[in-house]
Amino acid sequence: MGEPVTLPGLARVAVCGGTHGNELSGLYVVREMERRRREEGDKVRTVSLTLVVSNPRAVEVCRRYVETDMNRCFTNAVLSSPVSDTTPYEVRRAQELNTLLGPKCSAQAVDLLCDLHNTTSNMGLCFICNSSTDWTILHIYKYIQSKLTDAPVRLLLIDIPLADSYSLDSMGKHGFSLEVGPQPHGVIRADIFNIMKQGVDLFLEWIDQFHSGVVFESFEVDAYVRKRSMDYPREPETRQITAAVHPQLQDRDFTLLNPGNPVFLTFSGETVRFDGEESLYPFFINECAYYEKGIAFHLAEKKTLRVPSVKVKKS
Amino acid sequence: MGEPVTLPGLARVAVCGGTHGNELSGLYVVREMERRRREEGDKVRTVSLTLVVSNPRAVEVCRRYVETDMNRCFTNAVLSSPVSDTTPYEVRRAQELNTLLGPKCSAQAVDLLCDLHNTTSNMGLCFICNSSTDWTILHIYKYIQSKLTDAPVRLLLIDIPLADSYSLDSMGKHGFSLEVGPQPHGVIRADIFNIMKQGVDLFLEWIDQFHSGVVFESFEVDAYVRKRSMDYPREPETRQITAAVHPQLQDRDFTLLNPGNPVFLTFSGETVRFDGEESLYPFFINECAYYEKGIAFHLAEKKTLRVPSVKVKKS
Repeated sequence: MGEPVTLPGLARVAVCGGTHGNELSGLYVVREMERRRREEGDKVRTVSLTLVVSNPRAVEVCRRYVETDMNRCFTNAVLSSPVSDTTPYEVRRAQELNTLLGPKCSAQAVDLLCDLHNTTSNMGLCFICNSSTDWTILHIYKYIQSKLTDAPVRLLLIDIPLADSYSLDSMGKHGFSLEVGPQPHGVIRADIFNIMKQGVDLFLEWIDQFHSGVVFESFEVDAYVRKRSMDYPREPETRQITAAVHPQLQDRDFTLLNPGNPVFLTFSGETVRFDGEESLYPFFINECAYYEKGIAFHLAEKKTLRVPSVKVKKS
Repeated sequence: MGEPVTLPGLARVAVCGGTHGNELSGLYVVREMERRRREEGDKVRTVSLTLVVSNPRAVEVCRRYVETDMNRCFTNAVLSSPVSDTTPYEVRRAQELNTLLGPKCSAQAVDLLCDLHNTTSNMGLCFICNSSTDWTILHIYKYIQSKLTDAPVRLLLIDIPLADSYSLDSMGKHGFSLEVGPQPHGVIRADIFNIMKQGVDLFLEWIDQFHSGVVFESFEVDAYVRKRSMDYPREPETRQITAAVHPQLQDRDFTLLNPGNPVFLTFSGETVRFDGEESLYPFFINECAYYEKGIAFHLAEKKTLRVPSVKVKKS
């Protein structure tokens, strides 16, 4: 067991919604937190909290983005690229956010950034992060997972070096996204809103406990690690899809997919089977925004992480 | 009982998809029917079938519409309005379709027009038409309802005079829409595709039987008649919504709503109750496209229609 690892406090925290303008739960969670702060004043918290509507123009028109997908713009390369008249709005806005919340990979960056997303996939509450050794983030995940009962809670690792990481959550010294579904884009469902709101409340609660000196015990936890993705069958010339996700795969995110299992049903009625050589876990199955990216679903393997006991470093 | 009513045959039939460019089931049903016709040639049918992708520009960008909602453009007034440089694309396209499939209210119009739609609401297969005395249409509905088992099948009446009727299906001498859900816009689900495809196959099968001289028996059937609609609670100034549909109402389309039942849950957690004076049936609950129209759901009353026995008029 041994002594808890001591970790720095998280004085500056950002919660972002509307990074994709048609993913409404995060937008309304942020607006509700803003409203409450206006009406009730800052609740005594142990953190300085910044609330952000990340892509206001996309929110205005209720689309994922106006010119380019902003949540692919947060690499060091894009953030440091020169701006011209033809620079897409989202690149300029990403650079603004880098000034507000970053600069990324610098000592000035917010200590923790939580970015809120929805998916049309049946993912429950999916906690997405980049590192399998960020004990702060993994303890926050464990806290949410142990307390939230209204949806399955799972941990997803996207294993990319921080400088190349393209998502907004990579702007913070620590960062994660909450991805909640299923919910159609452009729609808000009360059940999905409530799950996301609980997730946010729980991570802020964890921080307060952490700052107050609570020792969080060590644990082991399952993580899904993204391996690769599969596209829809398409017509070679028009690139139009020729099949939908198979009914036996639809809505079965994080259920093991074995070689030979049905994955697509063509519009003429034929079943297409999984031709992989190993069993993997599908997720983001039939996510609306991924048709244009050539992704019908992602595939992950599962591994077990061992996370040590932690407590806050006395400042 | 008496003698069957004799009704004219339906020589020219149109099936339209993509009237809203992000409602994908109808689009892919029409494309699949086109593909089959190309590959197999015209199956011997008793009708001349026109297949239409109604709004190709909206399909291209996978949005409901480009400039204005085309399925509100098929009134006689809009169809006969002069065209200028500022005329929205959808008005021009509606006038094109009027030339191709109409003119509306003329002898040249197609005999039957079926328009295919999706909704984010939990509506199953909803058969929508304008008239409670169009025996042809009501027999087609009854045939689908009696044969299709994969989803609840219901009849919805929108009671508007034909000249003022704004939807594409009003272009035919007889017309109806198939509205299938729940499915997020911009997504295609195999289960929803299959329900819609079955609906289309069944109505074409009915026409073949009708033309072959089958006598269809009289029946009584329940119809939902649209009465009024309810908007979301909104902030007076910004018009932003302040509540989502209540979890006890969400997904309960066509389940009787009584005065005092929960209808909304505000983002701060309060329940808003139905303040109507009579019990009504909600439908199109939390449809994505209706946020901008100020509609959280519609309300209907139920009535019983008596439909006489029919057979085809010998030509």
